[in-house]
Amino acid sequence: MVIHLKNTVSASIANEIAQQLQASIFQENDYFVLVTPSALKAVPEAIQPHVQAAWPMDSDIQLASKNYRSVLRSIRWGNTEIGGETNHTVVIAGPCSIESWEQIESVGKLLKSLNINTLRAGCYKPRTSPYTFQGLGLEGLKMLAEVRRLYGLNIITEVKDSSHIEEVIEYTDIVQIGAKAMYDQSILRRCGEIRKPVLLKRGFGTTLQEFVQSAEFILSGGNSEVILCERGIRTFETKTRFTFDLCGAAWLKQYTNCPVILDPSHAMGYAYGVPDLAKASVAFGCDGLLIEVHPNPKVAKSDSAQQLDFEVFTKLVGDMRKIAGAVGKEMI
Amino acid sequence: MVIHLKNTVSASIANEIAQQLQASIFQENDYFVLVTPSALKAVPEAIQPHVQAAWPMDSDIQLASKNYRSVLRSIRWGNTEIGGETNHTVVIAGPCSIESWEQIESVGKLLKSLNINTLRAGCYKPRTSPYTFQGLGLEGLKMLAEVRRLYGLNIITEVKDSSHIEEVIEYTDIVQIGAKAMYDQSILRRCGEIRKPVLLKRGFGTTLQEFVQSAEFILSGGNSEVILCERGIRTFETKTRFTFDLCGAAWLKQYTNCPVILDPSHAMGYAYGVPDLAKASVAFGCDGLLIEVHPNPKVAKSDSAQQLDFEVFTKLVGDMRKIAGAVGKEMI
Amino acid sequence: MVIHLKNTVSASIANEIAQQLQASIFQENDYFVLVTPSALKAVPEAIQPHVQAAWPMDSDIQLASKNYRSVLRSIRWGNTEIGGETNHTVVIAGPCSIESWEQIESVGKLLKSLNINTLRAGCYKPRTSPYTFQGLGLEGLKMLAEVRRLYGLNIITEVKDSSHIEEVIEYTDIVQIGAKAMYDQSILRRCGEIRKPVLLKRGFGTTLQEFVQSAEFILSGGNSEVILCERGIRTFETKTRFTFDLCGAAWLKQYTNCPVILDPSHAMGYAYGVPDLAKASVAFGCDGLLIEVHPNPKVAKSDSAQQLDFEVFTKLVGDMRKIAGAVGKEMI
Amino acid sequence: MVIHLKNTVSASIANEIAQQLQASIFQENDYFVLVTPSALKAVPEAIQPHVQAAWPMDSDIQLASKNYRSVLRSIRWGNTEIGGETNHTVVIAGPCSIESWEQIESVGKLLKSLNINTLRAGCYKPRTSPYTFQGLGLEGLKMLAEVRRLYGLNIITEVKDSSHIEEVIEYTDIVQIGAKAMYDQSILRRCGEIRKPVLLKRGFGTTLQEFVQSAEFILSGGNSEVILCERGIRTFETKTRFTFDLCGAAWLKQYTNCPVILDPSHAMGYAYGVPDLAKASVAFGCDGLLIEVHPNPKVAKSDSAQQLDFEVFTKLVGDMRKIAGAVGKEMI
Repeated sequence: MVIHLKNTVSASIANEIAQQLQASIFQENDYFVLVTPSALKAVPEAIQPHVQAAWPMDSDIQLASKNYRSVLRSIRWGNTEIGGETNHTVVIAGPCSIESWEQIESVGKLLKSLNINTLRAGCYKPRTSPYTFQGLGLEGLKMLAEVRRLYGLNIITEVKDSSHIEEVIEYTDIVQIGAKAMYDQSILRRCGEIRKPVLLKRGFGTTLQEFVQSAEFILSGGNSEVILCERGIRTFETKTRFTFDLCGAAWLKQYTNCPVILDPSHAMGYAYGVPDLAKASVAFGCDGLLIEVHPNPKVAKSDSAQQLDFEVFTKLVGDMRKIAGAVGKEMI
Repeated sequence: MVIHLKNTVSASIANEIAQQLQASIFQENDYFVLVTPSALKAVPEAIQPHVQAAWPMDSDIQLASKNYRSVLRSIRWGNTEIGGETNHTVVIAGPCSIESWEQIESVGKLLKSLNINTLRAGCYKPRTSPYTFQGLGLEGLKMLAEVRRLYGLNIITEVKDSSHIEEVIEYTDIVQIGAKAMYDQSILRRCGEIRKPVLLKRGFGTTLQEFVQSAEFILSGGNSEVILCERGIRTFETKTRFTFDLCGAAWLKQYTNCPVILDPSHAMGYAYGVPDLAKASVAFGCDGLLIEVHPNPKVAKSDSAQQLDFEVFTKLVGDMRKIAGAVGKEMI
Repeated sequence: MVIHLKNTVSASIANEIAQQLQASIFQENDYFVLVTPSALKAVPEAIQPHVQAAWPMDSDIQLASKNYRSVLRSIRWGNTEIGGETNHTVVIAGPCSIESWEQIESVGKLLKSLNINTLRAGCYKPRTSPYTFQGLGLEGLKMLAEVRRLYGLNIITEVKDSSHIEEVIEYTDIVQIGAKAMYDQSILRRCGEIRKPVLLKRGFGTTLQEFVQSAEFILSGGNSEVILCERGIRTFETKTRFTFDLCGAAWLKQYTNCPVILDPSHAMGYAYGVPDLAKASVAFGCDGLLIEVHPNPKVAKSDSAQQLDFEVFTKLVGDMRKIAGAVGKEMI
Repeated sequence: MVIHLKNTVSASIANEIAQQLQASIFQENDYFVLVTPSALKAVPEAIQPHVQAAWPMDSDIQLASKNYRSVLRSIRWGNTEIGGETNHTVVIAGPCSIESWEQIESVGKLLKSLNINTLRAGCYKPRTSPYTFQGLGLEGLKMLAEVRRLYGLNIITEVKDSSHIEEVIEYTDIVQIGAKAMYDQSILRRCGEIRKPVLLKRGFGTTLQEFVQSAEFILSGGNSEVILCERGIRTFETKTRFTFDLCGAAWLKQYTNCPVILDPSHAMGYAYGVPDLAKASVAFGCDGLLIEVHPNPKVAKSDSAQQLDFEVFTKLVGDMRKIAGAVGKEMI
């Protein structure tokens, strides 16, 4: 159950009630919000005098549920906004990994020229083998910051495990929690304490229920800016890297209040399919896309097969703008 | 290996060669086509004088492969064509099952008014329980024929098992082989002998490789008009009925020469998600869509949750036409 | 709901009631059994005078449910019995396909020498490609009959589609419905009319609910002898052919009254893993196993990788007998 | 490629070579071991004089591969050993979570009485919802240590994320890395530095390839004692919690040199199926089992449905000992 306490309730009383109800607690505007286990279906009588409003819930999808808050959350970074009252579809693009200054600078320049203002690139790579390229780490973060300065872009990069979470939080505009880290409570809880948007990727073996419950770890820490990202799930079909779960995305749109961003590059795993999937995503009505683009995909140190080259990407951006127009969305 | 014999080779010689190579054989234009196991990589010397052209193949996806024939097959029924040189996206719509004359007549009228000219409806339902509605059978086929006459529509209906295949072939314009029947070789081979288009649905547990190999049973019988239909696969996610495999559809588009039709209704299983998925499908660039529409979904005898009502469907058709325009397709 | 009518109710009254309740009907002993949609939770008042007993059901798993009939069904063929009051674990073994008289005769001889009395072998192969070996058909059935005569064995063989179902029913002691045919209602309903045991294999994309509902098609036709066979499901893991669903088998044991047979050969797909899985299956307490054995697996025309040779199989049978003893079962 | 340098090669030269080859490096006995990306298939000429032996590899499964080291690794903790030359099947048992001193003490006593000497219990629970019981943390670790002292048991407990890894390493005899943490490189790399056995659980969405590559992060850090644990994967079947992948376990046994432990409790998710699966696991020939047992499962704060009570567990241990005997294993 989500409970809004009256704004006259003090912090100490609020904490006492939270403890009594085994509830998470955070402050919002001038009142406290409690989230109890969803098994609690009615406010205990003794507590009622302190309660402004309460929402019993079916499951532990609570703060993210449309049953609690039916309006899509607004998420802002830099001069950009998605969700809320906007009709924006944001394109977030860049290489899988930062590999060199020349590489990332050229991508920054391309985005700028296409009026795309959010750059993605990985510095800490959650590779599945210890014997492959693991990312440039802090050096990569610094390059990202420099590209941001140079081209006036926003940046998003991934936290792979908690050993480098503070650096990522410091440098990035949006913190990305990757598909393999999305059950990591130390990362989730730390992201609940910050005041930057968090893009949470669905694990490839993760149900929608578990995915949104991961978002609850962040939301119940008091950070209201969570973006959900579908990037493909693992199924029996192996001719493509993953299976893009657009049905799942439709469910998220219907039942949650978090903006939904789609990642056709990781879902498909092969560049040939990415433009069609990206166009489909725009017509689907998502709040944004993550697309991998690289100046020379053939020599990329990770995800070589799935990154678009500049020519294909440039054509795709034009196509997507047309589709966005046809469905009443503005592509930013 | 696919082999085109010279047009001077007689039927008896052709059959002899086929037997020698354990090959399927059929006539095309004025020559014979053989398809051997893909393990054969070179034409045996003794046969070379009879051979016009030969295509060694990587796998038993042979006639359907772009490596054999790179141009998209043209499929025609009535006054309609998809694939080939067209840029058509066909909408095929109708109720899950025919339940009564009033029901199917009202759908026919609606389609007519929306300039949609192919009506789908099930007469033989492949239900998973013996204790539920099993379809109207032959009576349903006759109603379909009557609606066709009345509104000048084309019709497509499903063969569930081989007990009623001849009736379906007789009445329908396109034969649909359902997801549960697509491994049935008696149905597949019978459809190889006819000269009507066949819409083959992917089984929900079927790999793309097996799916296209099922099409090979039909194609190698001499029927060149096979449409592939992706309708959702079964995965660990159960909040939606199936998982719509758009990545798989991208693979089909890239590697096969058969038109691809998408079925968002069965994939999603819930009406709320169907419009967004249908719009995505159009932007994706599919050759057509199957969409379930019913005058009163709440009382439908099968697939009640997923059928659109007339109002939602009418709005969707308008939206899809705009998107088709934005991606350079014509919706028919 | 399953309803036993009083034995005084005539066929014509029984049929009338069945029609009224949209129920399946068959005769058992001296009374009629009706199975209505499970949505019906109470016997209508007007019918109550005709009713001996009634079992409301949670789902369309009805006749197969322990809630209807808690005792394990007894299944008999030749001099063999499983289920019921026995503690038998039957071994059913043989090659994937009959390829020649020498091959099948040698397997028959081996089984005889090991005191195994049921021989399996495929005559009609449900291959996924049209360009591979499709089985010997009727010729194979005749060879099987001859091996049966020669060594006093029972035989089981698979029906692939309805084109050859009558031949299979005529020749075999147990009719096997394969994983790809288990949704085929014309086969299922035909098997409901016969009086031979039916071994129903679970489709690799089939839920337990659908699997047992397929069995209901047979049971509600009046054939009470259905054996359920788990043979691996399709998952994201592709290093093995399928994933052996022992958890699912545990569910079947707990909730259904049909004997459960396990097929480690098809689940694994590689001979190296079959002995360990077979031993596990015995200790698990299944009612039987299907194991593929071939005189020379390397040259087998189908499933070459997964068939055991005679030496490995002979050793395995000895090992399984010891384990059967340790868990209080008798291996037959 | 795995490379053993000659024991005359100094640390500084070894490190230089490692850097040159982009290889992981650790010391074993009196020589250095390098592991390069598996793409390297031959030792560069300049380095050959320093090389004692080298194993080119097919994939990044290298140190764990039977192609490198065909003998099963021996893993020891306290007075216990599995793998190596032993024929041991170890039973590791205990509650899902430590909930109170009385609870864990009673389990310790039970294990002692059954001659089981390794106790498992969770202190930091990787729950999927923030609104449920999260474990007793450090307090739980201290209770575990006390039970160990009292009954002479060994203990194993799980690290959920890197925030508490040092406490777990300090208190436990075996470090368990849970299914949700197994991609966490900060945990994996830290476990590579310690000299305690590590039990690595397979993620429920993790391929065998990725699973063993996770083990490579630990092994290539110099810790040779890794146990692999299969605990069920996520599939389309939801009547059971997960699907127990015994086929996958057979692959691990065939291709890797790490002992394999099976966890039927988490795979099944329901107590009724655990005994049969556990008995199957013993006959399968695994090196050990994890089984959940609780004095009163009904009131358990986590995994209530799947924990065995003392009576069922005691009976099961007896049954398993008989089966172990029948397959030539000794249960410890």
